[in-house]
Amino acid sequence: MNDLTQSDADALIAKLGADARAAAAVLAETSAERKHAALIGAADALKAAEDAILDANAEDLVFGEEKGLPPAMIDRLKLDPARIRAMAEGLRAVAEQPDPVGKVLAEWDRPNGLHIQRVATPLGVIGVIYESRPNVTADAAALALKSGNAVILRGGSESLNSATAIHACLMQGLRQAGLPEAAIQMIPTRDRAAVGAMLRAQGLIDVIVPRGGKGLVGRVQAEARVPVFAHLEGICHVYADADADLEKARRVIVNAKARRTGICGSAECLLIDWKFYTKHGAVLIEDLLAAGVEVRAEGELAKIPGTVKASPEDFGREYLDMIIAAKLVDGVDEAIDHIRRYGSGHTEAILTENDATGDRFFKRLDSAILMRNASTQFADGGEFGMGAEIGIATGKMHARGPVGAEQLTSFKYLVTGDGTIRA
Amino acid sequence: MNDLTQSDADALIAKLGADARAAAAVLAETSAERKHAALIGAADALKAAEDAILDANAEDLVFGEEKGLPPAMIDRLKLDPARIRAMAEGLRAVAEQPDPVGKVLAEWDRPNGLHIQRVATPLGVIGVIYESRPNVTADAAALALKSGNAVILRGGSESLNSATAIHACLMQGLRQAGLPEAAIQMIPTRDRAAVGAMLRAQGLIDVIVPRGGKGLVGRVQAEARVPVFAHLEGICHVYADADADLEKARRVIVNAKARRTGICGSAECLLIDWKFYTKHGAVLIEDLLAAGVEVRAEGELAKIPGTVKASPEDFGREYLDMIIAAKLVDGVDEAIDHIRRYGSGHTEAILTENDATGDRFFKRLDSAILMRNASTQFADGGEFGMGAEIGIATGKMHARGPVGAEQLTSFKYLVTGDGTIRA
Repeated sequence: MNDLTQSDADALIAKLGADARAAAAVLAETSAERKHAALIGAADALKAAEDAILDANAEDLVFGEEKGLPPAMIDRLKLDPARIRAMAEGLRAVAEQPDPVGKVLAEWDRPNGLHIQRVATPLGVIGVIYESRPNVTADAAALALKSGNAVILRGGSESLNSATAIHACLMQGLRQAGLPEAAIQMIPTRDRAAVGAMLRAQGLIDVIVPRGGKGLVGRVQAEARVPVFAHLEGICHVYADADADLEKARRVIVNAKARRTGICGSAECLLIDWKFYTKHGAVLIEDLLAAGVEVRAEGELAKIPGTVKASPEDFGREYLDMIIAAKLVDGVDEAIDHIRRYGSGHTEAILTENDATGDRFFKRLDSAILMRNASTQFADGGEFGMGAEIGIATGKMHARGPVGAEQLTSFKYLVTGDGTIRA
Repeated sequence: MNDLTQSDADALIAKLGADARAAAAVLAETSAERKHAALIGAADALKAAEDAILDANAEDLVFGEEKGLPPAMIDRLKLDPARIRAMAEGLRAVAEQPDPVGKVLAEWDRPNGLHIQRVATPLGVIGVIYESRPNVTADAAALALKSGNAVILRGGSESLNSATAIHACLMQGLRQAGLPEAAIQMIPTRDRAAVGAMLRAQGLIDVIVPRGGKGLVGRVQAEARVPVFAHLEGICHVYADADADLEKARRVIVNAKARRTGICGSAECLLIDWKFYTKHGAVLIEDLLAAGVEVRAEGELAKIPGTVKASPEDFGREYLDMIIAAKLVDGVDEAIDHIRRYGSGHTEAILTENDATGDRFFKRLDSAILMRNASTQFADGGEFGMGAEIGIATGKMHARGPVGAEQLTSFKYLVTGDGTIRA
């Protein structure tokens, strides 16, 4: 939909941005207790509004079917009582996390008697642009509120009714806690011009978090003049080293690929050391095949019955499906070189019992998350203990890896003297 | 000078950027000892090359006089043996700081047995664009190297010969330590098109740090597509509260304004609480006048002999001179409101013996640096104990306040399991 002119859209975002900025000034001084109360109030409201949310969602589903959305998107759009309950539980989980604002991140004394503290502060105003999952409305708002930030939400056009119903519950929580409603604003139009206006809203929006497919994230990264926390792709690698424990490797590799294939932490490429292969044979590949995974294998591995011969394009590719690329490498350094060339800087795992090899993998690679003897599917804010995540970032500025409430803060310095002057 | 076409300039930066990226990959794995050795080697080389540096500087001074640079800029450009010694000491000070790379910033265990570490990593490639002070060449390179980053330096056209001579010493340190020379590159032309190319070098340069006047910083902030660490202005405020100690206030205020007026931490506006004024009279203003400061006073304060009547434009103004704006306010909240409206988010100080009032000032204001009973002139990386600073940032993304080696790092997560899979 493109009924708004660009200047109408800019004016809309300017208004929402100014209201958000005013709300952010209040939130920055709001006590942890009050933010907690708003989140618990919103969780209670979600539970109470279950029927209204399901009705709104039914409208979206009709709209989505008419629009001809593919079944996978319809599934992401669909809410049921269990999903609404999970959303409410998500709000409670964020509420119970420690409040990041005001935390003393570092402190030290100077020889002249000055005491210096670095203290966490909110970033300001967060813009979230997402696609069909209505639950992002609740998750993103909760993390922004927890970290004392105002948020402007721009949900997928197909989930507008569901998101509006969820937003009403968040408003109820804010009101009960006496917090400004502009703390959590939703863009009230399906018009795409609003997204362009958000991306250019320097000074109004401090950071944009896109949640969705490569098309959305790529557009946001290319066009945004506002900083962005995002990952374009999760091309995650698993490397089975010569010194890997066979049983651990078998367990982790199948889980890393097949537990859920649609998430960014799903493994897309398996690298196997020649020595491991010589010793243990085809077992890792056979496990994947047995789990129903299509294995696109290179060289020697392509001789294993059931595999498909890989083409060069199969490396550096994000399948998000029951497919994995596989290749033999000569030691950890060749694995590192392959990952540096084909990875997307998201998450890579090594399977090894050798500490020196594990350390080398950790030291020489620079992805946001590196794992040893663990499944890449753990690349998730909840699994990291952050309560929830607003997304995963592969950039190196400010936030990196899972973005939780803590990563939505900045800091300021508090310096205390006693009439101290500089010589 | 504009002899390069924009596409020549882009090609030049692409080449320097690619070489810097390759050097950065080496630096990221370089031991603390080797970086230390390179910095000490460069400091020794600076000392040994004193005559050559002074000769090069003499050429720049001739060029600067011909170009008609104002005396203040000539002074900034001028080197002497003491300034060269100070540069070498600066390199040694950075060398002796703890190495920030690889530092474990946080670590924790998960109930499933995963151990998670957040570990500091270099950012990558830093671009530094600066004006006439040749010493920035050494300071910026030292901080970038210490934090494992490659750096591309673009000095002022008027200091090209001096900067080239200093750069040669830095190269010597790199060579002695066996590090790639592309770790510290200088743009070998006075052409301005190179600056534009740096500002657009997304993917080649990770962050730009401009050092210089408002003209340079404003251009960089407006045009850069690369993240920027900077402050446009230092409009620093000092507030003398009703509960200020008179002697501390007198000492701090004169120091905050007059110790050095040309630095960004110099106070530009004095706010005095009415109650303080009623009790103590004109003494703070009289001290400033006695120190030779022009006081542009509003309202009641303008009645004090020797003051000049302030115009509305005198508030929110960065004088960088022996001038200060002054105003009476009604309590800490009015001071806070004034600072929020007129400040530049750099540094503000309160003078008070009242803890509740001090805390309110610290909590409700969100400048990069807030001080209590201390001079705003302490807004400096060296004074904070960072060894040196590459600049002071007023933005809220990534770095804020004095930018030292630690602020030039990012982080990655290292996750260790024992064949751990996600349920």
